[in-house]
Amino acid sequence: MPDRSHSDRNIAEHRQQFSSLSNKQYFNYGGQGPMSDRALQALTHAQQRIQQEGPFAGTVNQWLQAEGRETRSAIAQALGAAPETITLTENVTVGCNIPLWGLPWQSGDHILIGDCEHPGVIAAVQEIARRYDLVVSTCALSELLKGANPVAVIQQALRPNTRLVIISHILWNTGQLLPLKEIVDVCHANAPQTRVLVDAAQSVGSLPLDQPDWQLPETGVDFYAFTGHKWWCGPAGAGGLYIRPEVLEETAPTFIGWRGISVDENGQPTGWTPDGRRFEVATSDYGLWGALRQSMELQAEWGNSAERYERICALSRRLWEGLRSLPSVKCLLETAPPPSGLVSFQLIDSKNQPRIDLQVKTVQQLETEKIYLRTLESPKCIRACVHYLSLETEVDSLIERIKEVTEKN
Amino acid sequence: MPDRSHSDRNIAEHRQQFSSLSNKQYFNYGGQGPMSDRALQALTHAQQRIQQEGPFAGTVNQWLQAEGRETRSAIAQALGAAPETITLTENVTVGCNIPLWGLPWQSGDHILIGDCEHPGVIAAVQEIARRYDLVVSTCALSELLKGANPVAVIQQALRPNTRLVIISHILWNTGQLLPLKEIVDVCHANAPQTRVLVDAAQSVGSLPLDQPDWQLPETGVDFYAFTGHKWWCGPAGAGGLYIRPEVLEETAPTFIGWRGISVDENGQPTGWTPDGRRFEVATSDYGLWGALRQSMELQAEWGNSAERYERICALSRRLWEGLRSLPSVKCLLETAPPPSGLVSFQLIDSKNQPRIDLQVKTVQQLETEKIYLRTLESPKCIRACVHYLSLETEVDSLIERIKEVTEKN
Repeated sequence: MPDRSHSDRNIAEHRQQFSSLSNKQYFNYGGQGPMSDRALQALTHAQQRIQQEGPFAGTVNQWLQAEGRETRSAIAQALGAAPETITLTENVTVGCNIPLWGLPWQSGDHILIGDCEHPGVIAAVQEIARRYDLVVSTCALSELLKGANPVAVIQQALRPNTRLVIISHILWNTGQLLPLKEIVDVCHANAPQTRVLVDAAQSVGSLPLDQPDWQLPETGVDFYAFTGHKWWCGPAGAGGLYIRPEVLEETAPTFIGWRGISVDENGQPTGWTPDGRRFEVATSDYGLWGALRQSMELQAEWGNSAERYERICALSRRLWEGLRSLPSVKCLLETAPPPSGLVSFQLIDSKNQPRIDLQVKTVQQLETEKIYLRTLESPKCIRACVHYLSLETEVDSLIERIKEVTEKN
Repeated sequence: MPDRSHSDRNIAEHRQQFSSLSNKQYFNYGGQGPMSDRALQALTHAQQRIQQEGPFAGTVNQWLQAEGRETRSAIAQALGAAPETITLTENVTVGCNIPLWGLPWQSGDHILIGDCEHPGVIAAVQEIARRYDLVVSTCALSELLKGANPVAVIQQALRPNTRLVIISHILWNTGQLLPLKEIVDVCHANAPQTRVLVDAAQSVGSLPLDQPDWQLPETGVDFYAFTGHKWWCGPAGAGGLYIRPEVLEETAPTFIGWRGISVDENGQPTGWTPDGRRFEVATSDYGLWGALRQSMELQAEWGNSAERYERICALSRRLWEGLRSLPSVKCLLETAPPPSGLVSFQLIDSKNQPRIDLQVKTVQQLETEKIYLRTLESPKCIRACVHYLSLETEVDSLIERIKEVTEKN
């Protein structure tokens, strides 16, 4: 077993399996994780196998069925859940759209959405509200930066007719972690029909969701949508959705295809598949599934989910402390380091205001130096992500580089 | 330029770029087309480039934007349409679901669907009817086997309140080609609100849709959903949808994500992208797009769409005539060969009834001999597809093998 003392030593060996990381300093894990060489090979091998044995053949179709089963099982295990609760999707956004369009909306129903959600999800909610005559309100989770209690913020915004609450488990802009079980408890206590949908883009693959107290069934969450291509370092185009078994039947499939239905002996539809597959639609790039499993297995070879999360938090603390010590840098989180790999900060002027143009210019300049960061729009900031794969030396070097930028500008 | 005399000579050289075809006799083009070595390499190269330059980086994101534009353009050109009319989707079924869920349904609206449609689309229609209180009826395009006129069949089934007519351009079970322009004219003349949605799974990549009289804008069709992984021989997981510009605005996005929206300077949604991208959702396996373009370009290197279609029809006629000459074989089409690559036939008993078990057993047995066919459920038959890539010798050998099967059983 590798030493878990947060030294770079063991991770350096592990990182050799990621050629992608060899030529750069990478801090965009929250956008997309790098794929290991093994996962890339799995993609190629799957395509070759399909072409060699088929592409359309009985043996290939049986293999793809098995691939789907194994992938739903591997994902379920990582979430502490049962395979039947998992739907394979193209991405996290489709995973959010499934419950958004699948709930049996009544005119006047209330949707509560946090003010730190991704624009794609916000736009979907706006369109659903238009179509079904719903009421949408926003609660200020952005106030968490000023010390607000997220459970209280949400509780105060609930209404008797709140049908759905939409939040992220980890806020993609600030890196803050919401107390999921407490929030779900408050929402479920609000009214019998209140459900909770979580955008888990930043939490799956970073939080130890297979550990006690973290497992999804323990939190009571109704819908949990995620992707494999960020913190799991899987291929782009493969994600999923967890649905609590008790709300499966009230959630109707919307986009529908042959993968989600049962048919009679004449090939005519007779109903839905009994489990999460009912929300899957039709032909996908099935080779992505095996590559995602390879990605998950490789991470587990370095350490279990708790060990990886511990290293993520240690590295983000190191980055946060270093950035915070710089006079012209303001971290979005001011009192404690992020309980996640996302460290967002601003390059500020003498009036404590973000220097937006400098932030954009800095991200562009650093990319030419093969240092990968991104800007965010709300609030205007730079986001640097660290994963368990990151190196202490990378973190220290980034702090140094940001120091140079602020001193020269 | 290659000789177009339907000899195997030129195609044999062209086929050397499809390693997948070297070890088998392939007749499942209607299920999935084989990928060329070049297209497979494009997949690998795209993944490598993304990993090397990113994966999440400004340069990568710019490149992916350009890939999307080039792919919509290449597809548009192949359909005789403008790039703005094209939405990139995961598959043909998603392409059907977009207009199905996007039309502004009114309670009581009528949907007319042909009785030869794919079960996934039928199931979607049933669910939409349940949600929006619509009336669905079926018209018997299966009667075309008995000589019925498809335009008359559809015209007789239209109602004053018909909002949507759903048909396939080529019927996936019989291989029959519907006269699209005539059908669309009749539907549009029915009522101002009547729209036509076409499942183009079997027609895109086989019909010469970029040629005069075939181009989609000339037909007037409203929605035309297709996939790249069948007759274009592209990768599974990439397809699209054509929307007639005049009906774009009445078709609302349903599954919604960042790829389909515009945002303001704070990253908040402000509306839809002005073109077909508004129905695209979020992260996909973007490398599929370049592989699809490679697949389309390679086909064009052998011959233009009219030349490929001519060869498809010549080969399917050869197969149809050969099968039809066998005493215990009944082709679904009895009076003329299919105007497509799909040749469906039954192994019949002395009472002219299909021997269903023998059909299933034969497909399974032939797969062990690396001869790839499939059974269909409605009507119960075997389907053998020929593409321009097929060889006359393959066709003759299949006829011979089917002859042996019927003589021995």
